[in-house]
Order: sequence, then structure tokens, then C-alpha cells
Amino acid sequence: MNDEQSFDIVETKHWQFAEPPNELPLRCGAKLGPITVAYETCGTLSPERDNAILICHALSGDAHVCGRYSPDDPEPGWWDIMVGPGKPIDTRKYFVICSNIIGACKGSTGPSSVNPKTGEPFGLDFPMVTVEDMVKVQHALVSRHLELDQLLCVIGGSFGGMQALRWAIDYPDIVRCVVPIATATRLSAQAIAFDEVGRQAIYADPNWNGGDYYSGNPPARGLAVARMIGHITYLSDQSMHEKFGRRLQDREDVGYDFGPPDFQVESYLRHQGGKFVGRFDANSYLYITKAMDYFDLASDLGGAVEAFRGVKSRFLVVSFTGDWLFPTYQSRELVRALQANGVRVSFCELESPYGHDIFLLENPGLEDVIRSFLANAQEATG
Amino acid sequence: MNDEQSFDIVETKHWQFAEPPNELPLRCGAKLGPITVAYETCGTLSPERDNAILICHALSGDAHVCGRYSPDDPEPGWWDIMVGPGKPIDTRKYFVICSNIIGACKGSTGPSSVNPKTGEPFGLDFPMVTVEDMVKVQHALVSRHLELDQLLCVIGGSFGGMQALRWAIDYPDIVRCVVPIATATRLSAQAIAFDEVGRQAIYADPNWNGGDYYSGNPPARGLAVARMIGHITYLSDQSMHEKFGRRLQDREDVGYDFGPPDFQVESYLRHQGGKFVGRFDANSYLYITKAMDYFDLASDLGGAVEAFRGVKSRFLVVSFTGDWLFPTYQSRELVRALQANGVRVSFCELESPYGHDIFLLENPGLEDVIRSFLANAQEATG
Repeated sequence: MNDEQSFDIVETKHWQFAEPPNELPLRCGAKLGPITVAYETCGTLSPERDNAILICHALSGDAHVCGRYSPDDPEPGWWDIMVGPGKPIDTRKYFVICSNIIGACKGSTGPSSVNPKTGEPFGLDFPMVTVEDMVKVQHALVSRHLELDQLLCVIGGSFGGMQALRWAIDYPDIVRCVVPIATATRLSAQAIAFDEVGRQAIYADPNWNGGDYYSGNPPARGLAVARMIGHITYLSDQSMHEKFGRRLQDREDVGYDFGPPDFQVESYLRHQGGKFVGRFDANSYLYITKAMDYFDLASDLGGAVEAFRGVKSRFLVVSFTGDWLFPTYQSRELVRALQANGVRVSFCELESPYGHDIFLLENPGLEDVIRSFLANAQEATG
Repeated sequence: MNDEQSFDIVETKHWQFAEPPNELPLRCGAKLGPITVAYETCGTLSPERDNAILICHALSGDAHVCGRYSPDDPEPGWWDIMVGPGKPIDTRKYFVICSNIIGACKGSTGPSSVNPKTGEPFGLDFPMVTVEDMVKVQHALVSRHLELDQLLCVIGGSFGGMQALRWAIDYPDIVRCVVPIATATRLSAQAIAFDEVGRQAIYADPNWNGGDYYSGNPPARGLAVARMIGHITYLSDQSMHEKFGRRLQDREDVGYDFGPPDFQVESYLRHQGGKFVGRFDANSYLYITKAMDYFDLASDLGGAVEAFRGVKSRFLVVSFTGDWLFPTYQSRELVRALQANGVRVSFCELESPYGHDIFLLENPGLEDVIRSFLANAQEATG
């Protein structure tokens, strides 16, 4: 980081581990290796090596959490609002780490990676990976490659929050504090339903071809439909009303046809769907939504309260009033389970009409609570 | 109707009108004719011809609102819970009429009907039909074919409620009372968004072929995805939690694969999607969702209040607490607009965790208010 500029210049690095015969055993029973992990770091590790913050990304994220790849890179990382010099997760103070989860398609090993056994992309031969497995890989990166024996904080929203929870449970002696945002200890039936319909849209695309499409055309239309469904769930009735209402798209009257979009909201969805297929792999979408559906701390760990038995980290749990995909009641359940284990937990429900995606957007309320929680946590747990 | 049995035996009848050169002029500017209307009646018209109730069906409904086609018919009409001998819409008292909307696929003229100009199914050559057009056709059936000069009540839920509203506006001297249930004067941006994603799923199915598939395979997978999206919106987070939770489907543990459904909610959606494609036409799904999106009384009629200026009917407006597709605030807006015009309106918000579809299900609260409203209305307006 350069103090003269208002953003950090970052680069994506790759680390490989779990070389055969030391493959990583996965929850599903299969083994995976070698595993490549794409990651970025930002800021400077303190001499005491006690200022590292791991950020876990959500469904469609990647390792590029903040900063830019060059001074004239127009597109900053996905959480650049929150992470950078002088920002709540201040890269002048903290050493920030973010890695692409396994199963994804942004540099870490996933279904589009080459299967060393065949020399072809895995496709559906890629083993099912769970949040537990993803966190194991992050832990290997942090402890073995970056040689850190503690993390000041693990923080993440949505699916990233699930990873943060698993960190607190699996590595209680490493994680000093945890910030799960707009997340849950398990997905609701409604959220599973939305995931399943997205998957069905991908399966229904003949280009999907049972996951074997890397030598041909990808299932772009199916993936676009899945993404459009997702986008509805990331917004809210109120925010869609405010953002689009019933305003028409570049026209005076509806078209009475099935051509160009009549309404702005239709145009927005088509745009989001189209944009996504250019940057995401359909099979990764399938694997990651499955990992999200399967995530269930109560079922995996003997009960909603029992799951957090050995947890030592401090917690800041954040939810948003307008988030109907991961509603506040789920965060309250998490808070109660943590409290029942004597975990020190702050809970903050922020007013926002916006919907689930608000955690990724400019949000002074969220910025303030994260900034002060981190400062306090560093002092108190240092 | 036979007093000895607990249900009515009904039959579907067909009436044809708008023969060229007297085609029906449509809102979109096109003309349609001849038009076939599939309809059913149940109960007996009083000598005064003053006990007729028109029931308007929702997106996927048809003319078969109640009763059975034969004594051993296992499947009653779609609102048999509400309509029949001794039921709230009592066919011992009322003469019930229900017709399939134009644009649909259950006997009335729609995109799967033969285009007289070509001898082939219309496909996308079918003109866009609006709620206004659908109601015009219902009015022709009622006034010209059934020769009724008044309706005791027009009642409908969801998209059927939109038709009921249009009846009150377009035929104020005919309709004595109106019961719009779980509906709105215009769709929200979020509801348009869900409709659009359903349409995109159909467009994405190569079998759809621009709407020209009647000589080949229908776009079953696309239509199934559209229906699955719909079903999520007809339920609610709470009802899905109660009905399915995270229970697995015929298995002890998740499958770690993309094969049979892991969760009951996935199995339910797949079942609903699969069932629908056997009974519904994809093009009709497109046309009817467009008619729903286009419905906008405020925009069409000079304002939310102005729209109801000439209305003379009494109203009972019903909404449900758990309905997030047509939330209560939309019914309240309707009630305020009616009141501003001095319309006599009762409003009833019923407690239900269930979601939008509750109006089709057993619901003593809804049954009670409809029964008593109809009895009072018959007396007061007779």
C-alpha cells in the first residue's frame, strides 16, 4: 500500500497444496488434490503478526475484495466500499486476506479446473465441497502458507458469513473475533427453494449437458435465469419499488409483444443475467448453491446450541430489516445460540429497506459498527 | 343441482361470438374473432334473474370452478371448497358462472387455438390480450349469451381479482357487488420481476422456438421452471418452514450429488413443475403473465382514485397477512381509492401465515366473510 494513493494496488496469487498422496479429505468422503487457492492480501502484517483479517466471499465473489490491479484499473474489488486505506476495514491498520473458495471459478480449484486424472475439466466429476471443506482450505492457506497462528477477525456476509461461523467452530484458538453479516446457521426452506429453481434452470439448458460443456457453449441462458432469480431475492419489494416501480424502459407505452423489455425492472434483470454469464461458471453455481443448502450447523454438530460449544471468539452479528432472504430472525437464533454458550456477542439489526445485497453497498450504519467493533476487538483481545 | 348429493354435476359449454367481420377490438389495437368462450354454470337462475355470481379465475385456472363432471369424477373444480351446495358461494342459492379467460388454454380462444387465417395454431401471432379485453368477453357471455342484465357479484382472487375490479369500473350498472381477494390495482415491481423470470425460463427452452412448437415438443422444462418460481411466491417463508423445513426427501443424509432431490421442498417444486406442464400451455403462460404485468388501473384510467370514479358496486376487499406477492398494503391502497369515491367498501385482512395461495385453500375466515357479505349484499341491493 502506498500512503499517497486512496486505494491499494493488489495482485492475485496462487498457492497449491494437497498434492497426491496428501489430498484433502472432504466431508462427502472423496479426496481432492492438488488444490490451487487464489488469494489476495492487502495491507501490512504487523511485526506481532496479530492484525490479520480474513474476509470470506459470498456466492459469486472472488479473492479480489478490495483495491485495484493497476493505477488505472477502473473496477475495484467487490467490497472496496468497506476495505481499503482509511475505510472501516482499514488496510493501513490491518492485513487483509481474501481467497476464492474451492468449487468456485475465480482461480481456486473447482469444476472448471482440469481433473489431473483425465486431463479434462472436472465438470460433475468434481466432488461436492461443503462450507467445512472450504474453510479447511482457507485454514491451510492461513496457517501453512501465510504462517499465521491467529486471525484478528474472520468476516463475511451471506454465504461468507456461513464460512465465518465455521471458522469460529473449527478453529476456536485462531480466531479472535467473528463478524457474520446477513447470514444464518442454516438456510430456510424458502431459500433452498430459490437455489433449487436456479439449479433447475441450469439443468434445463441443453448446453449444460450434464455439466460437460467446457469444449462447447456454456449453458448461458439457464445460468442467466438462475441469476435473475437470485437478483430478485437480493433486493426487496420496497427497494424494487423505489428503484424501478412500474417505470417503462425507453418507451412511452407498453409494447404488447414479447420483444424488448416493457418495464425497467425487466431490463435490469436481463442485464444482470447477461452480465453474470460472462463472468461465472454454471457448474460452480450448482456446487456453491448446494454447499449453501447443505450448510446446517445444528444438524452437523448435535444441535443449534451445541454447535457453538467450543467457540472462544467474540462476535458481532449483523442483520438488516429489509433482508428477506436471510431474515433477522435467523440472526437472532444465532445470537441466542452463542449467548447460551457464554460467547461474547454484540448484535446489530440495521434499518434498511434495501434487501439482502445491502451488505455489499454503501451503508454508513454497517461501516460504523464494523469499524468500532474491530478497533475494540483488537484492543480487548490483543 | 341435485339436493340429494353434496356436489353439483357440471359440464363445460362453449359459446362462440365475434365472428368476422364483427371481431372484438382489443386494447392493443388488433381485433380477435371468432372467439370461443368455455364456461360452466352451476345452480339455478332465479325467476327474477338476480342471483348470478361471476367467478373470475387466476393465472392457471379454468371454467371448472366447482362440482364434478360425473358422480365418480375424483377431481372437483378449483374452488370447490368455496362453491357448491351449502358452501359460502351456495349453489342452492346462487347461479354461479365461471368462464375461461381468452389467452388461456382451457377451451377459450388463446395462442394454442387455430388461427382461422392460417389453419395453424396462433402461437405468437395471437394478439396481446389485456384484463380489459378478458372482461369484455366475459361481459359478452353474461349479457348476450346468458342474457343477464345484472350480476349479484363478481368475485375473484389474485389475477381474478383484477378482472373483478375491471368489471366494477367498466360495467357499473350491472355489478351489484365485487369481492377482490388477494389482489391489487397494479402489480409491484417485484411481482413483475418474478413474471419476467418465468417468461425468460420459457424463452430459454429451445423447444419454445419463438412460440411455434405445437407440431413438436412443448417447452416443458422452461415452463416447469416458471411454475416452480411461481410456487415459491404462492407460499411464504413461514409456510414453507412449516410444510417442509429442512426435512430430507426419502433419505437419511444428503446425497452430495445433483441427482434426486435432497430436501422435501425441492421434491415438492419438481413435482409441481412437472404436473403443470401436463396441463398448461407455455404460450398461455406468457400471455397471461403479460396481461397481469400490464394491468394498471391508475395509469390506464387517469389516477389511482380517478379509476373508480363511476363505480356503483359495493365492495368486500380481502387480503392475507402472509401474502407477500399481493401484500395487504396493496389492498389498503385499493380500499382508500374506493372510499375516496364514496364507494361502500368492507375491508378484511385475514391472519394467515400461508402465503398468496391461501385463498384457494380451506380457510374458515375467508369462507365466513364471503358467506355473510353475499347474504347482506343480496338483501341490501336486491
